[in-house]
Amino acid sequence: MSTPKTIKIGLCGFGTVGQGVWQHLERARTDLEARLGVKLELARAAVRDLKRARDVAIPADKITGDALSIANDPSLAIVCELIGGTTLAREVTLAALKRGAIVVSANKALLCDHGAELFETARKHGGQLLFEASVAGGIPIIKALREGLVANRFTQIYGILNGTCNYILTRMVQEGAPYATILADAKRLGYAEADESLDVDGWDTAHKASVLAFLAHGVWIKTDKMIVEGIAKITQADLKHAAALGYGIKLLAVITRDFAANQLFVRVHPTLIPEERVLASVNGVFNGVSVTGDVVGTTTYIGRGAGRDATASAVISDIVDAAAILATGKAVPSIPGSSSYASSQPPSLAPLEKITGRYYVRTLVKDEPGVLAQIATVMANHKVSIASVTQPEVAEEGTASLILTTHLSNEHAIRETLADLARLPSVVEAPLLLRIGDFAE
Amino acid sequence: MSTPKTIKIGLCGFGTVGQGVWQHLERARTDLEARLGVKLELARAAVRDLKRARDVAIPADKITGDALSIANDPSLAIVCELIGGTTLAREVTLAALKRGAIVVSANKALLCDHGAELFETARKHGGQLLFEASVAGGIPIIKALREGLVANRFTQIYGILNGTCNYILTRMVQEGAPYATILADAKRLGYAEADESLDVDGWDTAHKASVLAFLAHGVWIKTDKMIVEGIAKITQADLKHAAALGYGIKLLAVITRDFAANQLFVRVHPTLIPEERVLASVNGVFNGVSVTGDVVGTTTYIGRGAGRDATASAVISDIVDAAAILATGKAVPSIPGSSSYASSQPPSLAPLEKITGRYYVRTLVKDEPGVLAQIATVMANHKVSIASVTQPEVAEEGTASLILTTHLSNEHAIRETLADLARLPSVVEAPLLLRIGDFAE
Repeated sequence: MSTPKTIKIGLCGFGTVGQGVWQHLERARTDLEARLGVKLELARAAVRDLKRARDVAIPADKITGDALSIANDPSLAIVCELIGGTTLAREVTLAALKRGAIVVSANKALLCDHGAELFETARKHGGQLLFEASVAGGIPIIKALREGLVANRFTQIYGILNGTCNYILTRMVQEGAPYATILADAKRLGYAEADESLDVDGWDTAHKASVLAFLAHGVWIKTDKMIVEGIAKITQADLKHAAALGYGIKLLAVITRDFAANQLFVRVHPTLIPEERVLASVNGVFNGVSVTGDVVGTTTYIGRGAGRDATASAVISDIVDAAAILATGKAVPSIPGSSSYASSQPPSLAPLEKITGRYYVRTLVKDEPGVLAQIATVMANHKVSIASVTQPEVAEEGTASLILTTHLSNEHAIRETLADLARLPSVVEAPLLLRIGDFAE
Repeated sequence: MSTPKTIKIGLCGFGTVGQGVWQHLERARTDLEARLGVKLELARAAVRDLKRARDVAIPADKITGDALSIANDPSLAIVCELIGGTTLAREVTLAALKRGAIVVSANKALLCDHGAELFETARKHGGQLLFEASVAGGIPIIKALREGLVANRFTQIYGILNGTCNYILTRMVQEGAPYATILADAKRLGYAEADESLDVDGWDTAHKASVLAFLAHGVWIKTDKMIVEGIAKITQADLKHAAALGYGIKLLAVITRDFAANQLFVRVHPTLIPEERVLASVNGVFNGVSVTGDVVGTTTYIGRGAGRDATASAVISDIVDAAAILATGKAVPSIPGSSSYASSQPPSLAPLEKITGRYYVRTLVKDEPGVLAQIATVMANHKVSIASVTQPEVAEEGTASLILTTHLSNEHAIRETLADLARLPSVVEAPLLLRIGDFAE
């Protein structure tokens, strides 16, 4: 037998995930090399601060402060972009793709904002971009969509994609404590960032939804074309009323495609899920994704959605796929962007009238006669039919909390309804809207 | 661009699954061809009875009654073995592998009984054997273990792998009807075979467990080296007592590996799962698998475990992988049997003393003084510590039903205990043993 080829790997970014990749890849290397028939060499890593002490020690001559030098190093066939952000990460990714390298990325924000440019660059220069770690951490959901479920068209994908939000909502349910208290504690424990907005306002979930929508439907939907709502306004009252109605509340990404009309819609919002659904019992930092394909039906995937080791597991699976490609000179067959995804008739965005569902509306009103009639009239004007009304508790003096659920309506009608409700003199606070997710299983 | 290569596919077996594969592949063909850059041609199908009418009509000149003629046809680069059984299916698979074809198989019994021979034949002749459809139907669990989780060593895999058993247990819980009634109805509805033994006695689950154990650990464990117990003895009383203790009962395959001792054990048995675990709410014909890897932690996969379309989805994903291999002349990097799985130090079977857990024992005893003391003494003799005792209901005149749960013990001790209990004059019926699955999550 001939001497096995050596495939050199460079890591741009050597924080938590980068160190996890290095450590676990070193440990699994002998096994993986035997399986692949090639040698794998962790050749270089770029760090932001050369002086900082790290948990995973690597030889000084392998470290650089210059990530672009790794992106541009022709000896490195695989470049892992683990920097985060969309500035240097974009430069590094483009540079590596331009020289035909395979880039492994965990960066959903970069993919969402610049995916079209990145995949076009890859196509033009013979590079490839793998991104298993960008969505749902260690769950191999990218591979499932791209390869395992390749016979399917995806009518619906929905999932819990942000571990921080799920952790906060889970603790709110378990402890009965308000959002602000749990958020503060989550920050203290390192489960939420100092600036929590990316997570709790739904943007991180939206980035991931964009990646899943691209995989399933071949188009990049940016966050300004989605409905994106976060969890910050959810109260104990909402959780309790939802539970009384038989639902849990989860922040979901929902990607729906109408193949007959060739329309797609992507949205991110807190959703009431029937308690008996599997995703309703996905708690804490876990992620879960339900995928409905026209052949296979619904399959569901659950696991840790973030963290050093789960993310490293996904990055390493991409590195192994990349090494297999390099060992034989073959391209991954079903990477979107390079073939049919881009060429098939792209779907258009579904209008809001087509995004149907049932709704949960909580509002604070003046406690006086005729208020419910006014509200019911507004809803009737927009043909939003009320399914249930609860006036559950004594709010502040002179006000009352009202919880309404609706029959099937649509995003356009409910949006108009909410705007009109907010204008009613008897409505004290802008109403909170939650969606009821009666998804097919 | 040059004319794309045409890859010809032959189907051996054109029953429910074969017709599903034909129909869905024809529908998805244009998309898949664009993605792969090759043409896919469903060239021939072998049927058992040439005269039988079928839902999916194919041209008469593509049909043959001779499956071996497809296996041996050098123009067919991909052969799907969808015959079932282990006689003709084995001949067909071996013949196709010997000429270097890629065989796609859904046949877990064949893999379990002859896997070593098949993979050795593939290795020797340059053939390949893909088997996504053999376990858990449309859930891409084979790909997850083989590729998506490649960074991991698998300390534990457990799952609901037989839809018939899960359907029966689910209806028993929902309707409160006895096993025999539900089984008869399941047969009438086509959810259970006329000879139900393969399903309800655990053998089908054991075949699938064998396939998963091979993928994860590189050795073929045959069913005579497993504990294999079915669901036929489970009564309404068991389901109710389990529920009262906070558990559901599922037929599970459990594959545990102790890497320090390099020991493996595979078992199939009805298991009490804590209600809050995700797999406890996997109901009806659905399958679910929880995989614990040393890097990623636990990931869980849920979907339809059988049926025409779910199985076809998995077969087609293998056909697409096969076509990608053929398009570039590359071998799947991480197919076991051809590389590291076979060469790494194979684990030995763990002795029964090492298979630990808690147990549920139901027994029928004479309703007379001193019986509980006798039973407790037998258990104490084997150092099996009792966690709870319930004497729940009036059984037949002069007898009493006893339900015991134990603290942590092991298969050796509990087996000896059960043998001794069965010999007690006061024990009227051989005790029923169920395992309590307090699995890590």
